[in-house]
Amino acid sequence: MQELTVVKIGGNIIDNKEKLNSFLEKFNTIKGAKVLVHGGGKVATDLSSRLGIEAKMVDGRRITDQQTLEIVVMVYSGINKSIAAQLNSFDTKSIGVCGADLNLIPATKRVKGDVDYGFVGDILPDKIPVNDWDTLLASGICPVVAPITADVSGQLLNTNADTIASSVAQALSRLYSVKLIYCFEKSGVLRNPADENSVISKIYTKEYIKLKERKIISDGMIPKLDNAWEAMKQGVNKVIIGNALHIEKLTAPAHETGTLLVLE
Amino acid sequence: MQELTVVKIGGNIIDNKEKLNSFLEKFNTIKGAKVLVHGGGKVATDLSSRLGIEAKMVDGRRITDQQTLEIVVMVYSGINKSIAAQLNSFDTKSIGVCGADLNLIPATKRVKGDVDYGFVGDILPDKIPVNDWDTLLASGICPVVAPITADVSGQLLNTNADTIASSVAQALSRLYSVKLIYCFEKSGVLRNPADENSVISKIYTKEYIKLKERKIISDGMIPKLDNAWEAMKQGVNKVIIGNALHIEKLTAPAHETGTLLVLE
Repeated sequence: MQELTVVKIGGNIIDNKEKLNSFLEKFNTIKGAKVLVHGGGKVATDLSSRLGIEAKMVDGRRITDQQTLEIVVMVYSGINKSIAAQLNSFDTKSIGVCGADLNLIPATKRVKGDVDYGFVGDILPDKIPVNDWDTLLASGICPVVAPITADVSGQLLNTNADTIASSVAQALSRLYSVKLIYCFEKSGVLRNPADENSVISKIYTKEYIKLKERKIISDGMIPKLDNAWEAMKQGVNKVIIGNALHIEKLTAPAHETGTLLVLE
Repeated sequence: MQELTVVKIGGNIIDNKEKLNSFLEKFNTIKGAKVLVHGGGKVATDLSSRLGIEAKMVDGRRITDQQTLEIVVMVYSGINKSIAAQLNSFDTKSIGVCGADLNLIPATKRVKGDVDYGFVGDILPDKIPVNDWDTLLASGICPVVAPITADVSGQLLNTNADTIASSVAQALSRLYSVKLIYCFEKSGVLRNPADENSVISKIYTKEYIKLKERKIISDGMIPKLDNAWEAMKQGVNKVIIGNALHIEKLTAPAHETGTLLVLE
């Protein structure tokens, strides 16, 4: 099986032009098939507030109403095109897409119990068209993916970028040996959250449960890590969590930094 | 040679959701390889004014400064994703791109004489990567193209959608028998601008020159038509000008409405 690297970057990189450029230069050097999934960053919130659009909350949950959706689609697609343009100016032949393009990530509008979350998408993982992804990858194209999907009627939906990365990595495990790299602002999962040098190099399932119980793994990390474990269970070959600015070390054959997840 | 239909739509369709949807339903039924190029519409201007950004003019020319570019990229890319999502909800497998994706439309920043137009792109027609276009088309994919390009450094540039349509049509004439359909708000080139029933069904080069001299063809139409003639000279098989809402008639084997350009 050929190798495929799926990298997810978030707001800490997206919102900082210098860091983004430095990351993209390094991402460019990753060999073989690759996919870059990016989050949204603060630009959407900033633009909303400049336009006087208030965040709409129901039961403490943020709702993506029509106005917010329009802003989110514009902002994320704009970031998406900037990243693709930058990669194309290097050696990476890239195309900026969202889940709606080629229906690459089919989704459905989330409604849970009595709460209508607005235009938020839940991915339908079994419907991901693996062959269409492969058409792009086999042509040497790196898809850059914005966190937007669409439902069967073509309605655009705001969708979690971590879940996109994990769903795509899982689906493509049928055709590729997939390495999934979750980037965030820390160097990895830290034994001591205050100490960047306390990166846990390998984390085993049992240890993860203990670290959760002892609250050493922070609340914000838990959904990310749960996504990551799920990806491993569904056939992703390797999941590594670390800092985007060390991407060349995270993707090295023996990862030289970051946290590798190990299923038991 | 296989047939390829390149359709350009403008603001009169983009800005009206019902018209856009009606157009897309008809566009969906066009058989064979196809490309849809769209303009920007009024949304960018509306958003700029809501954000208090004034249009910057130099010598009566609009300049695309950094702020305006950011808005234009967001707005056009957002429209682009909505159109692609809608087409994918029908039977047309489509992908929303701009000229920066896969470097599909290489461009250079326009500087003419002493005037710096800001982030405006002039297309480098000889550098259009015909094989990358064909990778998409041969896979049954319909590219939906937003009027943004990038230069060799990855700088995004605001670019005229009519010129994009004509440049892409010309470049792809090497591989396809290309039909280029320019859509606008009229039913075609009108002998009497006030009478929608006075469509000139076929227009010959000599007649065009006469109609220009007699000012029967309006100023706004001239750049569009000059683009169209140039496309014909460069190998495009057919150019038809008409109303987007009659797209099924414009693309019929014997065009049933609109104006067909005929080179002499």
